[in-house]
This record gives sequence, structure tokens and C-alpha cells, in this order.
Amino acid sequence: MITTVPKGYDPREFRALTFHDAVPHFRDGADTPRAYLERCLETIAEREPVVRAFAALNLPGARAAADESTTRWKAGHPRSPIDGLAIGIKDLLETRDMPTQMGCAAYRDNFPKRDNAAVWALRQAGAVIVGKTVTAELGGSHPGPTTNPFDPARTAGGSSSGSAAAVAARMLPAAIGTQVGGSIIRPAAYCGNVALKPTQGGINRGERQATSMSTHGVHAGSIEDVWQVAIEIARRAGGDRGYPGLFGPPAPPPAARPERLIVLETEGWTALDAGSREAFESLLEGLRRAGVALLRRRDHPWIEAFEQAVADGRAVCNAITGWENRWAMRNLVDQYPDGVSARAKATLTKAEAMTPDDYRAALMERAAAQLRHAAVAPLADAIVMLSCPGPAPLWSGDVPGQPLAPRPTGDFVFNAPSSMLFAPAVTMPLLAVGGMPIGVQLLGQPHGDARVTAMARWMLDAITPVCVEA
Amino acid sequence: MITTVPKGYDPREFRALTFHDAVPHFRDGADTPRAYLERCLETIAEREPVVRAFAALNLPGARAAADESTTRWKAGHPRSPIDGLAIGIKDLLETRDMPTQMGCAAYRDNFPKRDNAAVWALRQAGAVIVGKTVTAELGGSHPGPTTNPFDPARTAGGSSSGSAAAVAARMLPAAIGTQVGGSIIRPAAYCGNVALKPTQGGINRGERQATSMSTHGVHAGSIEDVWQVAIEIARRAGGDRGYPGLFGPPAPPPAARPERLIVLETEGWTALDAGSREAFESLLEGLRRAGVALLRRRDHPWIEAFEQAVADGRAVCNAITGWENRWAMRNLVDQYPDGVSARAKATLTKAEAMTPDDYRAALMERAAAQLRHAAVAPLADAIVMLSCPGPAPLWSGDVPGQPLAPRPTGDFVFNAPSSMLFAPAVTMPLLAVGGMPIGVQLLGQPHGDARVTAMARWMLDAITPVCVEA
Repeated sequence: MITTVPKGYDPREFRALTFHDAVPHFRDGADTPRAYLERCLETIAEREPVVRAFAALNLPGARAAADESTTRWKAGHPRSPIDGLAIGIKDLLETRDMPTQMGCAAYRDNFPKRDNAAVWALRQAGAVIVGKTVTAELGGSHPGPTTNPFDPARTAGGSSSGSAAAVAARMLPAAIGTQVGGSIIRPAAYCGNVALKPTQGGINRGERQATSMSTHGVHAGSIEDVWQVAIEIARRAGGDRGYPGLFGPPAPPPAARPERLIVLETEGWTALDAGSREAFESLLEGLRRAGVALLRRRDHPWIEAFEQAVADGRAVCNAITGWENRWAMRNLVDQYPDGVSARAKATLTKAEAMTPDDYRAALMERAAAQLRHAAVAPLADAIVMLSCPGPAPLWSGDVPGQPLAPRPTGDFVFNAPSSMLFAPAVTMPLLAVGGMPIGVQLLGQPHGDARVTAMARWMLDAITPVCVEA
Repeated sequence: MITTVPKGYDPREFRALTFHDAVPHFRDGADTPRAYLERCLETIAEREPVVRAFAALNLPGARAAADESTTRWKAGHPRSPIDGLAIGIKDLLETRDMPTQMGCAAYRDNFPKRDNAAVWALRQAGAVIVGKTVTAELGGSHPGPTTNPFDPARTAGGSSSGSAAAVAARMLPAAIGTQVGGSIIRPAAYCGNVALKPTQGGINRGERQATSMSTHGVHAGSIEDVWQVAIEIARRAGGDRGYPGLFGPPAPPPAARPERLIVLETEGWTALDAGSREAFESLLEGLRRAGVALLRRRDHPWIEAFEQAVADGRAVCNAITGWENRWAMRNLVDQYPDGVSARAKATLTKAEAMTPDDYRAALMERAAAQLRHAAVAPLADAIVMLSCPGPAPLWSGDVPGQPLAPRPTGDFVFNAPSSMLFAPAVTMPLLAVGGMPIGVQLLGQPHGDARVTAMARWMLDAITPVCVEA
């Protein structure tokens, strides 16, 4: 079988794999969840040898679940609108039927035989759990084997590498990712997915209580599927402990045009390549033509203050997350000295040089940025910004004897804001530079997940994607 | 050896085991941490057969640590004021040198060989980890074997049963407990300890990310040791993820007399036995004589509103905790059907009948109570209230064939407030009824841990304890 690598991604032409539009055919009998799954498995068989999106597959389990779903649809009693949805689960989350190895040698063959709360909710809704998708080691920056479906020489982003790639390669219509710094939105942006990083606490993380700004989220080929998956989980398993969970309607919210958007540049703006900047500015021009007023840092002092409050976002996120993971990482390294990457050990060394007051200072910076974000809420309906700093970088592995490459899964400079702001973010595949996807995202105020999804749906409908040369 | 059970606890005469006053003798060479430990071990040998405070002991490890501490003191270079402190760790927290069995058959022989962040901090400070103290199953209400050191027919309270009993039996000067509903303050109150349940997030919980209102805290024989242990942990391991951690001075804050205190009755007041009520009212009279103004629900409408906001506290706490533990408990019961008590299974059944909206409603009640608590802050320096509803109840085990006793480790009616308010609470052994201890607690506003500790220190110095017949 010939391995297909699309040459030159074009968001105007690329047809992502979607699920919501298959549902009418489950109803009328022209299609079944089992047949849908088999088409996914064919694509997996074709693309997986190069893309390497999966850490584990459970084909018998998936086929059995798809058959049960088929029976339910035939009987006219599906459990939910995502009954029969073939989905991948990032390999940080426990699944009772597959190992949970977290991209980390220390967890090789770890098989706890439990379901994460979100996985439980997906099964309750009738979803078909197909496989565990590759994660960068422990959700950090040390990459797994996944390649970008649009160019195998490039990263798929991380840490939700396999989830992003499985959707982009049309292996699956949806996959669960997690974000601490930029791990949902950035890989989705590099891979041309739609994705939602919910408001902090929006989806029950179950046993995966990683850090104070970790979230479960959804990668998919369409905004409709993104929302439907997220809300079906939240309706069953709720939000994370201490949080009210994802708010919003039981079906994808209808498209809604924003009146005004704030353009957030971040510290990534000045380092951006010319093509990506041209593409993004051209997209903004399209928004203006569609009647959306755009506000930038020079237009209002509060926006300038907000930009400054998130300007050191990467450092703030790294300090908070490093400190919070410090004791678990130390225990892991002590127990498995050879089971953890040099990259993760270097992160631990930095965290172990921190004091409780350093952590407090980072929390204060985060809280101050959240106040600045709240302050600009009256100025606009949402924030629009790039989801990643240009196309996915080339990646061929670390070179033995050389210093570790700093960011093999890409830079999270455009992702630190939504993470530290606890803000909902939806990325949309609206740009291509040099034939590679680049995402554009909308950020809302906390708990505005449905609103920002509605605006993203409008942008996907109304705004013509932009393609430029590299 | 004859087992000593003190007959008739009298807080005016009982001399608790303390550490801070041994330190000068470590300095001058009249005593050593090793000798201190050996005295503890003698008491353990004497009392443990009846008290049953320990789930595990590591005597060789403790002796080696005490010897190292002795060397440091002799060299004049102790690591901290608690260098050499013999301490017990509640068996919910991981310790690298002892099993972590959580009072649960499903975790029998669980030995993860890792240190909880707080345990790591204690070792860094030079403390001597002597043993794991018995916890009610998984920190819930199904009791372990521990008996009350002042009457073996009675419970030591729970879930930090062993920590409370080890301190009360003078086996150890301090022990770490944890509280979700009332698991630090209530057993401490039944056992005549001083104890601090810090502001939510005050001490790094490490891997023990149980629920949104769980805290680590300290049981000790003196307020000085309580504070010193808490601050030594927080100075090294900080607070819990997302929280700034315990604030306060590096040494026990000096005694400070409150000007005004709010007397919180809670829903426990009307059900209280006559002796406990008489004792508490008599203690309040002592406070008045010492110049402290007391405000009660009839004195101010905001206090009445606050009382009403916490009146359903037990139900709110149970709903929140039940929901948050639901998925972990379901996985545990599925994996170990015979490894979990019927009591815990009944709690799970209730949690599984909840919807995400039920949980949201409970969170809203908690948040409303926190607002009512903040509203009364300007009225007084702190809240004074009972720590437990009368003396520790009799407990001789469930009767086969009979319904499960509802609250074998006692009622947390006086503990739900500090838990749901995220408020610091210090319990003081200031009452005895029928020869059994009853605690009185001060509650502060969040982050007022040092302030409430200073006021508790004043009360312990200035207020004569009250003893009444049952």
C-alpha cells in the first residue's frame, strides 16, 4: 500500500474527517458506526507507519463497541449524538483496556486497567475508544515518534502530538488532548485541526491531576464535533474538582459574528516569520471586510497593559508547572534514573532551584494577567491571535553529543496566554504558509466556552482561509 | 509491662509530650534526639497494644535518622528547629520507607517507595519519621483499629485516628493528619491534642490530591510544635498547587489576645449534650472575664446569616467530596470488589446518584458560605466554637447483620465549617466532660493561620480549662 502524504496543505481544499454529518446516515441506515470505524482503520493502516500517532490500539475493543453502537442506532436508541464516534485518547489518561505509558520509559507497560473520568463519560455516551495517542513524555516537551501528517520531516507539535496527527491524517474524527502550557492548541494548529482548550476546570481530569493549569480538551475535524464531544463529557463527568465545569448548550452553538475583537500579539509577534505575519494580517483584513472591528495594543491603554501582563507568559507557565511537578518528578527520577529523558531532568533541575517564594511570585503574575484579561472584557467580544509561531518546525531528533534542542515540539509563545488566563481557546485551521497549516485562535473570558465556540463557528463559515508562500 | 490508661483526663493536669522545650537540651548536651526517640519508643511499646495508633513503624530508619540529627546538634548545625523531631505520618501519605495502605484492604502491602512532598520537607528539616499512623479507610469514615488513649472503649476520632492517638498517648510529640471534612480537628479534639488545619492549600499535598477541600495539617502536644512543624514544611515544599501556601513567621507567633470573638453554634448546637454545653459556656465565661467580647447569632444579623450559610455544612461537604472521589472510588471498587468497605461503597452509591448540576449546587453553597464568612471578618478577630460534639463516642465495631453505624469516628458537625470555608482552624484541649477531652477551636479568615495560632496560644496561656461531669 502506498503511503499518502498530502503535498501542500491548503485549508481551502482540505476536507477533514467529520462525524456529525455521518449521524443522519446512521439514522437512515446508509452508514453504520462499524463501517465508519472500518474506514478509520483503513486510514490508520495506510498512514500510521509514517505518522505514528498511536501508542496503543485496541481494534477488537473498538470493533465490539462500534457494533454495539450500530445496534443502538438501528434500534433508534443511540446514547448520545456521539454514539459510535471513533476517538483517540492521549496517552496521559488512563483507559481500562490499554496501557498508559505517557511517552515515558519509566511507565513502559504501565497498565492500570482504569478509566479516566473523561474516558468513562465517553464510553457512557457511546463513543468508540480506538487507541491511545502519542504524548510527548509526561506531557512535557520531549517528543515521541509522531510526525506531522503534512510533512513527516516536521513535528506534529506537542504534547498532544498523536491526537493532533490522528485527526489531521483523517485517521479519526476526534481525539482527546490535554494542555498545561500549549499542548492542545499548538499541535492542533500545526496539524490543521479545530480544537477547544476549555476554561480551566471545564472537563473532569479524573486521576490526571497534573497542575493548577492543566485541562482536558478536544481535537476534531470540525467545530461541531469539538463541541459535541466536550459537552457530552462534561454533562456526564462534570468539571474538575472545585470547578463548575463546562457551561453551554447540549448541541453545537450556532455561528455568531463578533462585533469587535482584540488582536493579541504576545512576545511571539516580533520573532514571527514574514510569511506567517503576512498570512495573519491578511486574515485580519478579511475579518475587517466582514464587519468585525479590530483593536490592537496601540488602540487602547488597557490592551497595551494586557499585552505587557502576558509578555512573560512562557516563563510564568514554566515556573508554575515546573514547581508543581517537582516532587512527582523527583520521585520518578529517583526510582527510574534511566526512565526519564535528559530534557525532563533539566526541567526538574530548574524547578529544584526554585523557592516557595519564587512560586508565589509566578502565581501573582498569573493572577495579575487574569485581572488584565478581565479588564479588557468590556472592550471586545473575544481575542483573536495566532495559535502557533509559523509552520511546524523541522524535527529529526536530538543529535547525540550536542545540546538538547530547546523546543522540539515548537514554541508555546502563543499558547501561554490562554493557559495562564484559564481562558477558553478555540483554534481554527485558517492559514497555510508554505503548504503547512497554521492555526488562528479565539480566546474568550473564563466560562465563555460556548460563546467563543459560536464565534469560531462563524469564522470558519464566513472567513476565507489565507495561503501564502513560506 | 502494665498498660497505662489514664483514668479521667483533666486538661489542667495532663502534660502532653512536647519537643520545642527539649531543643535547649540538645544544644547543651543534656539530651539528644536519639534519647528523645528512645523515650517515644518506650511509650509506643507500652501503649500501642491497646491504642493501636500505627499502621507501620520503621524503627531502624528512625534510629538512624535520630542519630544523624544527634550528630548535627552536637556539631551545632541542626537543619531546623525541628531537627530530631520524632513524627508520625498519616497512612494516606506516601513514605519511601514504609507501605502506604490507607486503611483499605485494596491497598494492602501497597509500597510505592516515594515520599509525599510534606514528608520530603520534614526529612529536609531533619525530622525523624517514626511510623505511619492509622487512617480511617481512604480518609473516610470506616474506622481502623485505633482506640482513644483516654478510654479504649471509645473512638480516637477520624480519619486521622492514629495521628491523634499517638500524640495523646505521648508516643510522639507530633503527627501529620489530613482533613477533608473534619479529619484533623475532630480526632485532635477527642484526644486532647493541639492541632492546626491550615487554610486550604497551605501545605503541599504532593501526590495526595484528594479533593478540592483537603488539607495536610499537624497534631502536636503544644501550639509551639504545631506551628513549627507546619511552617518548616511550608518553607520547603510550599503550598498546594495553585495556592500561595502557609503564610507566617519562621517561629511560633507570640500569644495575642483577641478583642472580640464570634461564637459559632452550627447545627450541632441543639443536639449537644448538657455537659458539653455547660463546659463550653463556662469557657466562654472565662473568655469574657479575660476581657474578650463575644458576639453570637442574636447579636448581629450578619452572624445569623453566617450561621444559616453553614447550617447545612455536613451535607454540602459530603456532596462535594462524594462527587470528587466518585471516579477513583468506582475504579477501585471495580478492581477490588472485596477490598473496599460496605461503608465506602454506600458513599459511592450516593455519589453516583448525583448529577454535575448537583455538584455545581453544592459548590455554590460552599462559595456562598465563604462570602458570609468574609462578611463577618470586620466584626471580630476570629470565631470560637467547639471542635467536636461532646466526648468521643463509644465504639466497639459494626454488628454483623445490623445496619452500619452512621458515624463510628464521630460527627463532623463542628468541622464542616472550617473545611467548606477554606479557613484555618486551631483546636485547643480546654475542656473535659466526664473525664474525656473535648477541643475548642478558633477559626480565622483564609491566610490568617499565624494570627489564629497567636490567639490560640493566648487562650492556652490565659484561659483555665473547664472540667465537668458527664
